[in-house]
Amino acid sequence: MATLADIGLAAAINILSAFAFLLAFAFLRLQPINDRVYFPKWYLKGVRSSPSRSGNIVQKFVNLDWRSYLRFLNWMPEALKMPEPELIEHAGLDSAVYLRIYLIGLKIFIPITVLALAILVPVNWTNDTLATSKVVYSDIDKLSISNIPKGSNRFWAHIVMAYVFTFWTCYVLLKEYEIVESMRLHFIATERRRPDQFTVLVRNIPPDPDESTSELVEHFFLVNHPDHYLTHQVVYNANNLAKLVKKKKQMQNWLDYYQLKYNRNPSKRPTCKTGFLGLWGSTVDAIEFYISEIEKLSKEEEIEREKVRKDPKSVVPAAFVSFRTRWGAAVCAQTQQTRNPTQWLTDWAPEPRDVYWQNLAIPFVYLTIRRLIVIVALFFLTFFYVIPIAFVQSLANIEGIEKAAPFLKKLIEKHVIKSFIQGFLPGIALKIFLILLPTILMFMSKFEGYTSLSSLERKSAGKYYIFLFVNVFLCSIITGTALQQLDVFIHQSPNQIPKTIGASILMKATFFITFIMVDGWAGIAGEVLRLKPLIIFHLKNFFLVKTEKDREEAMDPGSIGFDSSEPQIQLYFLLGLAYAVVTPFLLPFIIIFFGLAYVVFRHQIINVYNQEYESAAAFWPSVHGRIITALIISQLVLLGLLSTKNAAQSTPVLLALPILTIWFHLYCKNRYEPAFVKYPLQEAMMKDTLERAREPNLDLKAYLSNAYIHPVFKGGEEDDDFSIADEQEYEQVLVPTKRQSRKNTPVPSKYNGSSSPSLPDVAQEP
Amino acid sequence: MATLADIGLAAAINILSAFAFLLAFAFLRLQPINDRVYFPKWYLKGVRSSPSRSGNIVQKFVNLDWRSYLRFLNWMPEALKMPEPELIEHAGLDSAVYLRIYLIGLKIFIPITVLALAILVPVNWTNDTLATSKVVYSDIDKLSISNIPKGSNRFWAHIVMAYVFTFWTCYVLLKEYEIVESMRLHFIATERRRPDQFTVLVRNIPPDPDESTSELVEHFFLVNHPDHYLTHQVVYNANNLAKLVKKKKQMQNWLDYYQLKYNRNPSKRPTCKTGFLGLWGSTVDAIEFYISEIEKLSKEEEIEREKVRKDPKSVVPAAFVSFRTRWGAAVCAQTQQTRNPTQWLTDWAPEPRDVYWQNLAIPFVYLTIRRLIVIVALFFLTFFYVIPIAFVQSLANIEGIEKAAPFLKKLIEKHVIKSFIQGFLPGIALKIFLILLPTILMFMSKFEGYTSLSSLERKSAGKYYIFLFVNVFLCSIITGTALQQLDVFIHQSPNQIPKTIGASILMKATFFITFIMVDGWAGIAGEVLRLKPLIIFHLKNFFLVKTEKDREEAMDPGSIGFDSSEPQIQLYFLLGLAYAVVTPFLLPFIIIFFGLAYVVFRHQIINVYNQEYESAAAFWPSVHGRIITALIISQLVLLGLLSTKNAAQSTPVLLALPILTIWFHLYCKNRYEPAFVKYPLQEAMMKDTLERAREPNLDLKAYLSNAYIHPVFKGGEEDDDFSIADEQEYEQVLVPTKRQSRKNTPVPSKYNGSSSPSLPDVAQEP
Repeated sequence: MATLADIGLAAAINILSAFAFLLAFAFLRLQPINDRVYFPKWYLKGVRSSPSRSGNIVQKFVNLDWRSYLRFLNWMPEALKMPEPELIEHAGLDSAVYLRIYLIGLKIFIPITVLALAILVPVNWTNDTLATSKVVYSDIDKLSISNIPKGSNRFWAHIVMAYVFTFWTCYVLLKEYEIVESMRLHFIATERRRPDQFTVLVRNIPPDPDESTSELVEHFFLVNHPDHYLTHQVVYNANNLAKLVKKKKQMQNWLDYYQLKYNRNPSKRPTCKTGFLGLWGSTVDAIEFYISEIEKLSKEEEIEREKVRKDPKSVVPAAFVSFRTRWGAAVCAQTQQTRNPTQWLTDWAPEPRDVYWQNLAIPFVYLTIRRLIVIVALFFLTFFYVIPIAFVQSLANIEGIEKAAPFLKKLIEKHVIKSFIQGFLPGIALKIFLILLPTILMFMSKFEGYTSLSSLERKSAGKYYIFLFVNVFLCSIITGTALQQLDVFIHQSPNQIPKTIGASILMKATFFITFIMVDGWAGIAGEVLRLKPLIIFHLKNFFLVKTEKDREEAMDPGSIGFDSSEPQIQLYFLLGLAYAVVTPFLLPFIIIFFGLAYVVFRHQIINVYNQEYESAAAFWPSVHGRIITALIISQLVLLGLLSTKNAAQSTPVLLALPILTIWFHLYCKNRYEPAFVKYPLQEAMMKDTLERAREPNLDLKAYLSNAYIHPVFKGGEEDDDFSIADEQEYEQVLVPTKRQSRKNTPVPSKYNGSSSPSLPDVAQEP
Repeated sequence: MATLADIGLAAAINILSAFAFLLAFAFLRLQPINDRVYFPKWYLKGVRSSPSRSGNIVQKFVNLDWRSYLRFLNWMPEALKMPEPELIEHAGLDSAVYLRIYLIGLKIFIPITVLALAILVPVNWTNDTLATSKVVYSDIDKLSISNIPKGSNRFWAHIVMAYVFTFWTCYVLLKEYEIVESMRLHFIATERRRPDQFTVLVRNIPPDPDESTSELVEHFFLVNHPDHYLTHQVVYNANNLAKLVKKKKQMQNWLDYYQLKYNRNPSKRPTCKTGFLGLWGSTVDAIEFYISEIEKLSKEEEIEREKVRKDPKSVVPAAFVSFRTRWGAAVCAQTQQTRNPTQWLTDWAPEPRDVYWQNLAIPFVYLTIRRLIVIVALFFLTFFYVIPIAFVQSLANIEGIEKAAPFLKKLIEKHVIKSFIQGFLPGIALKIFLILLPTILMFMSKFEGYTSLSSLERKSAGKYYIFLFVNVFLCSIITGTALQQLDVFIHQSPNQIPKTIGASILMKATFFITFIMVDGWAGIAGEVLRLKPLIIFHLKNFFLVKTEKDREEAMDPGSIGFDSSEPQIQLYFLLGLAYAVVTPFLLPFIIIFFGLAYVVFRHQIINVYNQEYESAAAFWPSVHGRIITALIISQLVLLGLLSTKNAAQSTPVLLALPILTIWFHLYCKNRYEPAFVKYPLQEAMMKDTLERAREPNLDLKAYLSNAYIHPVFKGGEEDDDFSIADEQEYEQVLVPTKRQSRKNTPVPSKYNGSSSPSLPDVAQEP
């Protein structure tokens, strides 16, 4: 049992380390040399460019203006300044709504904390159960429900609070769902013309002996949507071609590296080995080798390109079908086309940059089989992941390695290495697994066959949440692995499980407080530092960058990473709700997490992350659903806890809570979820009518003709080129910044001299 | 433990009573006087009419042809003769598919029985576990799995058989789903033009301050479906009017009764009392009284009729919107209309005779609240129904009655009445509850707000199945009330529950065999006798019937009653699957049930039942789902049973079964269910195109103008008049029968003299 002093010490350490991260960030971000790491979003927008041609050489790399260091925490208010509509314009609706998840945390927990501290803490504190009992206890326990004697009437205070907290949480969720829904609808309604508004993705087109897929699609839609069908694009299986293009690009990188090396040291021609990873094989002249390799690949690519274009077998049974009107597309996307519901499946086309091309060709039967496999695999991954890791760990000990590789024996037996292996290796297997986990889950989602990046991320997030819930929440509460838990739970009665969790949740409050400080506070502060992208950028910058364009590519803005970051936030919702009634002392730590994370991520979204796709907040129903899940779990845990406290008469009163919560969820699902899945005809008709009035002579067919072709056919090297270029055709209002456009800015900024609401005040002009 | 001889005796008794019922039926149905009770379907079709004007007087009432009695079981092959397409034409697709449920029972259980008797019975029989143990056992137990020693390897035979049975059941279900789906699609595709093909039911129309509902609907659809909208009909709240009409009809019945009485005995004017139920109040001349009452009601009705037509408040926010094409209706029914998913809800309109008018006006929020209430109520009804009954029973004893009504004391204390009350009353409360149960469940479904009779019946069937599963299956296996079960199960671990059921299921085999014979065999044989309609018809015939039309109305053909009969069949699927591996001896009894029920219901559907609506087998997905549920329950029970038999190594092997079964269910759901919920655009387009080619000058608006008006506005007295009259406008192929049309047949049969495949060979022509 940690005392208040222990917690205070831990808090101090973590606050200090978080502070250190923030300080390092504040220092590093002011250096011009790191500009592309900490402000890539502005480069992508074309508002900034490399500060490499103006000022003296030192100023190109280090910021010498001492005044700017004094205001090193300025980025925080700056990050908060940009108003939401501008943020949506700047970073997309997905990012703006993502930030609202943190905001919802604050909205839920600030009033709950105030109430809990004002009402429950005095109720708990003014008992002396713990003082008279012989149990070892800490001051924190005196503040918690464990200080209330068994069967006391004071539990009614907790029950009433449980109701109040539930109603408050539901109220916030309802309001938030309403807001996000109207934001989404408004966003969609005011959106510029985009190809996906007119387009439907058709899958599982049945084979026809007489017609090609393209002809078949055309005839089918001409017959069944005669007034609305406009054009279509078949999908080519260009996975091989994409591989070749990727390989060629890698070769090009190596060539650049060696050429740069040669330029710096022209006395020596660089050489390399042709074998695996350049480790063995015959030594050759590196530059010549890579030039010839690239030539070879170029030829192969050309052949493959021809093959894909001409071979009818490379056409997959899927197509993007475009309609004359949004109304026509909305109708086609929401209806069943033929008798057989596994053929001619229609669905809204994702944005062109959101399409996951590899999955377009999977037939219906395989989809159901794959889904079964993934469910079973997820179950085993969640509950049995310790088994392979334990196996690897058992191999990774001294005896194991000696057995597997006897020739290493002498080396291993040295003291330093031995202690390293014994102390470090077993942990590494687990660590590597946890780092790889989001990738594994994403692979599972890809295997399941979703066709857009946004849905892939949403589905991975759901899987990750299950994993975290079982392996972090449950396993921390009842010490032991998930596998042991599973065994225990299977052998317990269903009303025993909440009791078990309820009884041990009290003991774990201090553990979770420490967890929140380490994982939450320090973790978030580490996020803003971007250590990994920083190092990689400078390495690339040194070894590969030749031109401005190369530098652009070396920059890795990253994205929010919804699939791994959202489930982690959800963990804090779960902890906060579960402990709200039981140990209110934990709540302030949660609030600090949400506050800090909100500021940090707002800053990152404004300055760093580059949006990969725009799903118009399609993820909100699952966010809402997971908070509801956390609420229900917290209610069941309280139910279990109180029944161990001889407050059995409370059971029926508390049982009503989960039932009401589930009903509330169903109501929200029916009321708000359709806005995230369907596209109302009235809206479509309104936009169509407006457009017809404004641009009566619009050539939609030409506009749509190249929207949905595989990125490798785009000709350009950058995969996500299309949509950006596409959007720039329109009048684009950029956020004004203080940093002026320079002579070499690719797209000149139009807002010279206007003041910036959101940019650091580094005065770099000479 | 019942021995084989006991079972044999019970079987003999039940076979005899079933035989007695069938004999009585065979005799009664040959009497011309009962003709309208046993062949009402033919009268409704207009093929038969009352045999009252030809032949001598005795022959009008009694069949004197002794030869016809010799062939008294002839109706059975007759019932089987009518081929399925003709049956569909004759009684509708719903009835034909309903019969397939019995057929599926035969298809599943005949091969399973053969296999189980050939393989499992020898495996079980050749042990001597029971002989060497000290337990009391019967011969039936020697045939069951209880004769296998603990931990024996012979259990692998049972496990393999469990797999075989599961695969066979799934295979039959898959094939059957395929057949029913194609039957439904074919039925819909070849259907004549019907109003519901062009019509969509729109609910929750938002109020508008400037426009009436009718104008609002017209404008909304003219804007949002400009090319397809044709016309619409608003819905009036005519519930009051319907009540008046019903009351008037009752009065008319009484008037008829007294007039008939007066005609038979003209010396005495009949009198009646005006008070409650005619028990007290002043005595008046009955005929005059009812004539004046009817006049009064007629006036009230006229006023109410005017009010409903003119008062804008009597228009409910719902409308039937019709489109120019089936394509337009299919599009509107499957899409969301506006931003707010709780307004302008569109759905396929049910057939006009299928509409449940009372529920059309319920707003969205109430629907969700009502659903919550019904779920909670169903839970309490299922698990706590014993409480009010026990309460009533406690009142219904001697002391209770004496306390409540002291003046009855003397009467009650008489010996005969006392023993009657003590022996009979407690049981009556339960019996009344069980008789009322389908009505209660139907009321709950109505309260939930479904808008068509077919969906009401489907939802009631689901509720009834849950009730039967808990209160018949579970409570018979583990003796005790559902409430006690709930308590036991809550305090048991989830993997203990299948063990408990599995262990006690063995003991209950003989009980269920008796149950099948009493409830199944004798019950079905009783069904064919139609004792209640027989008595009621003759009472009505004697007291009320004046004209041929009255006699038509006195005839009560009834309908299948999907809401109560289907869940009862499902109980037999559950028993059969659960005992297939455990006690194969039970299976032949199930087969006899399905065989007998198939013949009886085929006969009833051909000769008796009148279809209330046609849902084109929309109930099949729930039938399929419930058989799957039974399959999964049987797998879990086997799993529990084997784990009590020390065959723990079988658990993982058996665990795969429910997972595969659930996956199979999901596959079927995705593959086949859409055919029962959606209406593919291709089909709609095909029918539209055909129709346009055939009848280019069709006035659809006129055709649809009166399709969806409330039955009380139809003018006629019969509620379900419209659709029948409507269908008769088309070329109708009636099934040829031997009974010739007579002079007074309303619609003359066209097939004079042709032989009948399905009619009893009573030669009644003079």
